[in-house]
Amino acid sequence: MNFTKMQGIGNDYIYINCFQEKIGNPSEIAVKLSDRHFGVGSDGIILIQPSLAADCKMDMYNADGSRGKMCGNGIRCVGKYVYERGIAKKDILTVETLSGVKTLHLDLDGGQVSAVEVNMGKPVRKASEVPVLFSKDRVLNEPVIVDGKEYRITCVSMGNPHCIVFVDDVDSIKLEKIGPLFEHYPMFPDRVNTEFVQVLGKNELKMRVWERGSGETLACGTGACAAACAAAWNQFAERQIKIHLKGGDLSIRWDGNSDEIFMKGPAKFVFDGTVEI
Amino acid sequence: MNFTKMQGIGNDYIYINCFQEKIGNPSEIAVKLSDRHFGVGSDGIILIQPSLAADCKMDMYNADGSRGKMCGNGIRCVGKYVYERGIAKKDILTVETLSGVKTLHLDLDGGQVSAVEVNMGKPVRKASEVPVLFSKDRVLNEPVIVDGKEYRITCVSMGNPHCIVFVDDVDSIKLEKIGPLFEHYPMFPDRVNTEFVQVLGKNELKMRVWERGSGETLACGTGACAAACAAAWNQFAERQIKIHLKGGDLSIRWDGNSDEIFMKGPAKFVFDGTVEI
Repeated sequence: MNFTKMQGIGNDYIYINCFQEKIGNPSEIAVKLSDRHFGVGSDGIILIQPSLAADCKMDMYNADGSRGKMCGNGIRCVGKYVYERGIAKKDILTVETLSGVKTLHLDLDGGQVSAVEVNMGKPVRKASEVPVLFSKDRVLNEPVIVDGKEYRITCVSMGNPHCIVFVDDVDSIKLEKIGPLFEHYPMFPDRVNTEFVQVLGKNELKMRVWERGSGETLACGTGACAAACAAAWNQFAERQIKIHLKGGDLSIRWDGNSDEIFMKGPAKFVFDGTVEI
Repeated sequence: MNFTKMQGIGNDYIYINCFQEKIGNPSEIAVKLSDRHFGVGSDGIILIQPSLAADCKMDMYNADGSRGKMCGNGIRCVGKYVYERGIAKKDILTVETLSGVKTLHLDLDGGQVSAVEVNMGKPVRKASEVPVLFSKDRVLNEPVIVDGKEYRITCVSMGNPHCIVFVDDVDSIKLEKIGPLFEHYPMFPDRVNTEFVQVLGKNELKMRVWERGSGETLACGTGACAAACAAAWNQFAERQIKIHLKGGDLSIRWDGNSDEIFMKGPAKFVFDGTVEI
């Protein structure tokens, strides 16, 4: 089977062109190929398939074999692949996902895709829908005590639950220790992804993320959107924000009219391969 | 550039056929390609080159760009590659390394290499040569106190220093905690690789390894040889031993006449790829 390894700010998937390849058991294949010592090594696999509703369909499976609904870093790579490999030569692309049809805007530079903007949808701030158990309808800059220390949290869902914690110095946070304590904090019935965010300026944030079930990761697209939303909502920053993550930078724009969040960032080819499955 | 990913009990390298490819800056390439999110992902790269002294030469670079002398799990993959890709169709192969010319014996099954035996050389047991600072000439089942607990250690060099600790239950060892304490224990001027070994029978061991500079790894070929040597030297086991490591099994034979240790184990192709460098 032919495949292509791609990454978006360090979030790396194995992309399979299912206009050409047939995959019978994607969940098993994802587990086998994602292993970083015995397999190809990745955060999961993404099948690029024909769609009746859009230019293509993105069907993703995580490294543990579970099916994913959407991935902001992954869908940017789908955009680059679909354009540069000639599946659809359009600078505005539609991609069907389990979270609905997403629209991508491609930045082109000499026939190559240099960046991709994705409409990530509207943030959900109602506490019961994040979900977060709380006495008020929304969780905006509320104090919680974790490991004996007070933190101020803001909660947002981008299809998955996020708890954003603004801190003075993100590098000094002991994430291995407090990440799991936030993840399993009793306020969060579905656990939570936690973003520790340092405000560098009105249009610039730095963040580290602890993803539920994964620990600290290089990048989390929905987490970056949630962090930008929380920063603007708290009036710590404006609605157009550059965010520095461990794996690279994203530009986030929270549209005041539509309430939608747009995420823009890079997508890269790493290598092409052939593997027996 | 074309490459092949191979692994031996989870020790995975990128193999480059330098009978066909030219690499100008292997150290930089190793760092770039070994990254598991932004590159191909590996423990390092191994260049298979023409040799005047043997069937081929193995030139290896670790993930941090440093040059390696030899790797028992890596050289088995070199044997499989050289045979199956037609560089030398011989079941006894010689491979030039920075530790001298090594001889491989290939087990063949239907034109494929099912296992490879490597002569790993003679164990060095003289304390000053391991090196380990000690009042006696050899370190055989000697008590040391680490983190308030007494352990019995045996020290052997297989070209690199090993400290072997026999324990009742290898799975219950808190390796993340005590591994670094052994690695930096003042007896070891060059630090040390530490093997925690459980004797399952006269011909069977189970081990976990803490490699200096790397932490716990799936497998360590020289560590398995050192563990087998230490087990036989202590008369805990015989000279022909099967060892279960996290990444898979190795068979170790310590020859009574020549004093040499032979290691036999699997080698696997994972995938072929093409990458821009």
